[in-house]
Amino acid sequence: MKEKEFLMIPGPTPVPESILQAHAKHPIGHRSGEFSKIFMNATEKLQWLGQTKNDVFIYTASGTGAMEGAIANTINRGDKVLSLVIGVFGKRFADVAELYGAQVTRIEKEPGEAVSAEELRQALEQGPFKAVTITHSETSTGTANDIETLIPIIKKNNPDTLVLLDAITSLACMNVAIDQLEIDVCVSGSQKGFMLPPGLSFIYVSQKAYAAKENCTTPSYYFCWQQAKKALNDKTTPWTPNVSLIVALEKALEIMYSEGLENIIARHKKLRDRLRQGIRDLGLELLTADETASCAITAIWPPEGINVPDIRKSFKEDWNITVANGQRHLKDKLFRMGHLGFVCERDILTGLSALKAVLEKLGYQQNIQIKTTA
Amino acid sequence: MKEKEFLMIPGPTPVPESILQAHAKHPIGHRSGEFSKIFMNATEKLQWLGQTKNDVFIYTASGTGAMEGAIANTINRGDKVLSLVIGVFGKRFADVAELYGAQVTRIEKEPGEAVSAEELRQALEQGPFKAVTITHSETSTGTANDIETLIPIIKKNNPDTLVLLDAITSLACMNVAIDQLEIDVCVSGSQKGFMLPPGLSFIYVSQKAYAAKENCTTPSYYFCWQQAKKALNDKTTPWTPNVSLIVALEKALEIMYSEGLENIIARHKKLRDRLRQGIRDLGLELLTADETASCAITAIWPPEGINVPDIRKSFKEDWNITVANGQRHLKDKLFRMGHLGFVCERDILTGLSALKAVLEKLGYQQNIQIKTTA
Repeated sequence: MKEKEFLMIPGPTPVPESILQAHAKHPIGHRSGEFSKIFMNATEKLQWLGQTKNDVFIYTASGTGAMEGAIANTINRGDKVLSLVIGVFGKRFADVAELYGAQVTRIEKEPGEAVSAEELRQALEQGPFKAVTITHSETSTGTANDIETLIPIIKKNNPDTLVLLDAITSLACMNVAIDQLEIDVCVSGSQKGFMLPPGLSFIYVSQKAYAAKENCTTPSYYFCWQQAKKALNDKTTPWTPNVSLIVALEKALEIMYSEGLENIIARHKKLRDRLRQGIRDLGLELLTADETASCAITAIWPPEGINVPDIRKSFKEDWNITVANGQRHLKDKLFRMGHLGFVCERDILTGLSALKAVLEKLGYQQNIQIKTTA
Repeated sequence: MKEKEFLMIPGPTPVPESILQAHAKHPIGHRSGEFSKIFMNATEKLQWLGQTKNDVFIYTASGTGAMEGAIANTINRGDKVLSLVIGVFGKRFADVAELYGAQVTRIEKEPGEAVSAEELRQALEQGPFKAVTITHSETSTGTANDIETLIPIIKKNNPDTLVLLDAITSLACMNVAIDQLEIDVCVSGSQKGFMLPPGLSFIYVSQKAYAAKENCTTPSYYFCWQQAKKALNDKTTPWTPNVSLIVALEKALEIMYSEGLENIIARHKKLRDRLRQGIRDLGLELLTADETASCAITAIWPPEGINVPDIRKSFKEDWNITVANGQRHLKDKLFRMGHLGFVCERDILTGLSALKAVLEKLGYQQNIQIKTTA
């Protein structure tokens, strides 16, 4: 059944019907009072979600565009940048900085591992750095850097260093306290925890980041904060935005606001733990240790003798569920299940039950019952 | 009645119900075979629309992003660029080039005027130029540059000069024969003649433009053609695209393909002529002469003693029609009516009838019948 498709990938993620309906409406004019009201309401709720008074800009672009915006508005050619690279997206942030002429020092970790406090302390000694790029939840591995530990280490001895955080799969899933941690630039994307289709990204900008922009000579137009700020003061965007998605964003943020931030974070943690336990109960191994597991996505090793393409094929053909492959050199080595955004306990039970059936079909012998309570 | 709103602005434009329905569907995974098929079908139809064998990339960004992409992939700091500036968007193209360090020579015209062959010839003598930026249909004034005359003048004596064309409000409305005119980079946007919500832009890239990219050291990541080309070879996009809009784009291009390119162009021409005649019959004056009138948008002077905010207010409140204000220094001096994309003769009749009623309400004395045949 075609319309029974269910996405368990790290984006696009499931979208609630009420958000699909908001998104389906005929677009309105983007220079109207009606749009300004929706836009400003969404902007304020985004501040609530990021626990911040900082400005937030809505880009009509996917997350990579916002990552480029984070670099292009702050980094000058020759600036020293430290990049925490724990997977594909950490590498992307470093690559963008390098493309823009930064001298990039990388802390590179094996897949599944996060950066430790000690590693960060040592690397910071090679500074001072203009900025540190950090991936919060690394989508390619389901591993999370512990930003509550790492960011204060940066801030303590390097008050002038900017913290640029990729929170693309963490915001709206995990705790991202922008003001408390003094995160200077924080980026996220619509097709993740936000329960929206892809097409928007968000960028939070601190006063210190604005000051860096003032001294930044790197050309950037579409993603320029000065243009965005000027437009925000007029309650609009500098360029024609995706009005349909912003209307849907307002609805999504309303739903999130009703659930409450603590509940959203607790729900994602619970679903992650429930999924990880169920996978272990099936006798499978996880890429990432409990202490560094993302609440948005889980990477799973297939059992010996069963290969990833067959697992993904059976998920898709027998159960209408899409799970993600590994990325780059992990392709066909492991698979990933997304559990972010519009996901409840029933979905985890369904995912685990389907995984069990998939494995049995492919000749997996271990006979384990899926537990229906955590 | 809230759902009776009708947009007569130059984007967002009216969207047919069948496209809204395609757009409303739950997003699918962007790394799926199902998406690749839709994406490649849309890509081929975009080539049909641009009358070209050149590659075309679909950006998840609005038209300004594609304009930046046109510059950032071709222009090095210090390159000489000639910009044809006949309004706000021509100025924007020149500004982006200047931001990226180009030495920009501008041909600047008064609002409503296009660039003449002679002006272009004279300006080209200040060359050689790495690139010439041209706005085809200038959205801020409803004036069109005659690209069939101008581009061959550039190509004849300057075979190495790149032609970068802003076809944002002209493609899918007017004739844009990319291969025949040897247009090197052509950009357009979804919320215009394409009958789609905003959120996508399109960029066509010639072999000569690719060669310029090879020698371009300007940093650009999200809009990078090499990343886009590599992904296109794999039948996908380099970054998570707006899958909902690409599904809708496929539907829109199908509708356009059924109508036929000659019919689309003829329809827009007819609607433009009909609207202009009707406005003149009401005794009002147009900003732009017939020879240089855009087929997408028409700028109209209000009659003496009646002001633009009152006209727009009455259109909106009495007739649920949104018409556009003038931009920048033309704000409140003239108003603009869009007639691009999903627009038929009935819409023009409606627009004219409403305009007549609006003017009468505001005390306009001239009593003219709206003609129901052209």
